[in-house]
Amino acid sequence: MKRRNLLFSTVVATMTLTTALPLSAGQAEDTAAIRDLWKTYQTVRMAGDADAYLALWDENGIQMPPGVPARGMDALKVGVPKGFAAVPVSQMEITPIDIEIAGDWAFARGEYTATQVVGGNDVEVDGKFMTILKRQDDGSWKIYRDIFNSNK
Amino acid sequence: MKRRNLLFSTVVATMTLTTALPLSAGQAEDTAAIRDLWKTYQTVRMAGDADAYLALWDENGIQMPPGVPARGMDALKVGVPKGFAAVPVSQMEITPIDIEIAGDWAFARGEYTATQVVGGNDVEVDGKFMTILKRQDDGSWKIYRDIFNSNK
Repeated sequence: MKRRNLLFSTVVATMTLTTALPLSAGQAEDTAAIRDLWKTYQTVRMAGDADAYLALWDENGIQMPPGVPARGMDALKVGVPKGFAAVPVSQMEITPIDIEIAGDWAFARGEYTATQVVGGNDVEVDGKFMTILKRQDDGSWKIYRDIFNSNK
Repeated sequence: MKRRNLLFSTVVATMTLTTALPLSAGQAEDTAAIRDLWKTYQTVRMAGDADAYLALWDENGIQMPPGVPARGMDALKVGVPKGFAAVPVSQMEITPIDIEIAGDWAFARGEYTATQVVGGNDVEVDGKFMTILKRQDDGSWKIYRDIFNSNK
């Protein structure tokens, strides 16, 4: 192997090792906590439990849904119970793809599918989301910013 | 003033000071660089300059537009020149609202308006966006994840 190729191989091997490095214990714990948050999100949305859903949000949270301007917690506290009552969800699956931890911030990106029950009819939705999470004083993670849109 | 109220006032004043603390020099520089990136984004989109637009993205960038699945750089390199040619934009204004720096990551959230020229007719669009930016080896910031949706 020529020296140039050897150097190249070493660089590639180093890059591969770097990207494949295992998460630190703290990062693995944070990532698991954020995965659990998405499981809770699914469960409480399907249960129609507005209070449990709102408890997933940071006190300064802002939701950015399609079709309406961004809304903060005051608007969410009014809108979520109405929305959950008007549009039940019989199935929901959230699949995180990226979760990056950066100190007391994290971001998550992924896909979702859901079955909304609209006027007695099932409506299948699927889309993608990006979320900023903020570490709370007690170490837990809450939703700080959340935006999503349809894939269709 | 009662002791209890004095304590409360001190806590509130401390909280206000904390939230109003100026950014560090590095954070201020990073925030300014990210604001400049949005100005360049507007300029190159209005100019229809696909190469300059693609240069704003991290090599592992993923765009998450409404109505289609998420797409990586290979798809963007094909899609952006076609999209810019098909739908010129005569006006665009991006208004960042939050910019948070977390080490080599940053996130930005904001609003946009644009005038798209579709079949010779002006179509006014407005919406909101959330973007993850990644610090590059040379210290510059590039777009790593970008998602947006309409306010209408």
